[in-house]
Amino acid sequence: MKGQSMAAEIAEQPQVLRRLLQNGHPEITHIAARVRDRAPRFVLFAGRGTSDQAALYGKYLVETQLGLPAGMISPSTTTLYRAHASMRDVLFIAVSQSGASPDIVEPVSAARMAGAVTVAMTNDPDSPLAGEAEFHADILAGPEQAVAATKTYTAELLALYLLIAGISGTYDPALQALPERAEAALSLEEQVAEIAVRYRFAEQLVVTSRGYNYPTSREAALKLMETSYMVAHAFSGADLLHGPMAMIRQGFPVVAIVPTGAGGEALRPVLERLHEHEADVWVIGDPEAARRGSVGLPLADLGPEILSAIPLIMPLQQFARHLSLTRGIDPDRPAGLEKVTRTR
Amino acid sequence: MKGQSMAAEIAEQPQVLRRLLQNGHPEITHIAARVRDRAPRFVLFAGRGTSDQAALYGKYLVETQLGLPAGMISPSTTTLYRAHASMRDVLFIAVSQSGASPDIVEPVSAARMAGAVTVAMTNDPDSPLAGEAEFHADILAGPEQAVAATKTYTAELLALYLLIAGISGTYDPALQALPERAEAALSLEEQVAEIAVRYRFAEQLVVTSRGYNYPTSREAALKLMETSYMVAHAFSGADLLHGPMAMIRQGFPVVAIVPTGAGGEALRPVLERLHEHEADVWVIGDPEAARRGSVGLPLADLGPEILSAIPLIMPLQQFARHLSLTRGIDPDRPAGLEKVTRTR
Repeated sequence: MKGQSMAAEIAEQPQVLRRLLQNGHPEITHIAARVRDRAPRFVLFAGRGTSDQAALYGKYLVETQLGLPAGMISPSTTTLYRAHASMRDVLFIAVSQSGASPDIVEPVSAARMAGAVTVAMTNDPDSPLAGEAEFHADILAGPEQAVAATKTYTAELLALYLLIAGISGTYDPALQALPERAEAALSLEEQVAEIAVRYRFAEQLVVTSRGYNYPTSREAALKLMETSYMVAHAFSGADLLHGPMAMIRQGFPVVAIVPTGAGGEALRPVLERLHEHEADVWVIGDPEAARRGSVGLPLADLGPEILSAIPLIMPLQQFARHLSLTRGIDPDRPAGLEKVTRTR
Repeated sequence: MKGQSMAAEIAEQPQVLRRLLQNGHPEITHIAARVRDRAPRFVLFAGRGTSDQAALYGKYLVETQLGLPAGMISPSTTTLYRAHASMRDVLFIAVSQSGASPDIVEPVSAARMAGAVTVAMTNDPDSPLAGEAEFHADILAGPEQAVAATKTYTAELLALYLLIAGISGTYDPALQALPERAEAALSLEEQVAEIAVRYRFAEQLVVTSRGYNYPTSREAALKLMETSYMVAHAFSGADLLHGPMAMIRQGFPVVAIVPTGAGGEALRPVLERLHEHEADVWVIGDPEAARRGSVGLPLADLGPEILSAIPLIMPLQQFARHLSLTRGIDPDRPAGLEKVTRTR
């Protein structure tokens, strides 16, 4: 059956989150303590594709929870231009499902030699990346068969949260409720499948969010590009207002991911502008905002905003899968993609 | 006449570059010397829209020329979540044409209070951003009337080059030839105008490049979205292979910006994959690669790769303008955009 792996892996997420909270948490807390002892002053993240969005979520966590400046590496400066940055006092976190992409392994190796504390976060403790870094955090998601990453994405988000919260020493009390929140988010699949039909012939789409869920919008866009061949473009709400809003004409399809909290608040002026442009807006998340969309998918209880990126991506993973099936594409094996991409 | 401001500002670029090299260089060198005295160990960049692409170019320069770790700020962590990062030993460079966007001014103010060396790079020495930062580098581009930034983008690129090269103490010997290289790049406008006709009905487009010119691809995509309402999506060549390649079907329009040097080399496997997918590829830059494109715009003498982002964007600015005129849009006043975007 087409899309069976992706369906199974999407559905498995509450269980993966539970496993990580129970079995992965102690080891990640141990790594966090050792990282804290080294007192890093600057944090760099590396990731490609889906793991790049997870890494971006990690960057937000570092800035808000650790109060440290942080950045995403540009792999090409190491792999193409042979730059050697001084990495003293730097915490270097590399995120990769396979742990095999050379343009992540090489920068980790260079960073470690240059004095960084290196943490690899992968789904394979035997991967080259896990071997290259000083510490390895296993996301314990189990083998992923579908080309489009789903359960490994949310496992990476949670592992990053556990690592950063472990370093800061402060965990959100809602953490343990995450698997149930994931179940609730996944329970809307029938509605999502109906909504997918509406986009059968959409050729392009904009996804927007803000703050902790800006990575959610990027990951949703990537899933749609990978599995439905939809030209999907993610913008933070602020970036959308800086130029790209011009291309949003009457009826242009936009997906707005609206958490509660400051990120959701900051999307209000964006939703207003989209309304002025008469865009077709599917609002996912905050029930109040969802009521005002052209289509709405209210998620009644998202929990604290800082953790909401985990449940919020799930209906969008289902959406990407249903849309690709509606289009006669096998989301488990999209044309022209391989599971591990070896770029430099 | 429609698009007159944008035409004049595009054409003015060699003169703006000359002015900056002659009149702006001493002041920027002075700032660079004072920054070097403070021995920053990490560099953060802030920018929105066009200035965000310029800032990304600056980040590549910092990594390759200064050997320092660098990152782009996420404005929302300061403006939405009130994060207060420790900024000791941090050089914070904010880039903004107007110097007026609150979501750039606020983080600069916070960074300065938290101990960063702050440099504002703007086109207006009386702007709030110029006042907020410890140092102000004037890009001396003169008033910009068109909503789509053109001359201020290349002026920002050059000012960033001058600042970073000033800190490192090493300038590329080809620097003084930049205004002539800009003239040469701009001299192909007739060919560009003919090529624009070919895209009259294209609804979407992917722009790709790598390394120092990845920001060029992002800026080209932004110009197209702003002025031609084209859904234009930029990817680094490496990111394109991680997923989005699936949506590139037979005949899909792609613009590949191919510099000479390592960035151009790294695009070879990307161009091969695009060829396998039977994409329609317009190659701009390296004459050898341009010959193999569906359409080619060879630029015979781009100079050193590190400076090639300045001439390479210019034909794409002209392309965006001609395409918008072909579509009956006034590129000086795209619908729904204002010159200064006030987001938080």
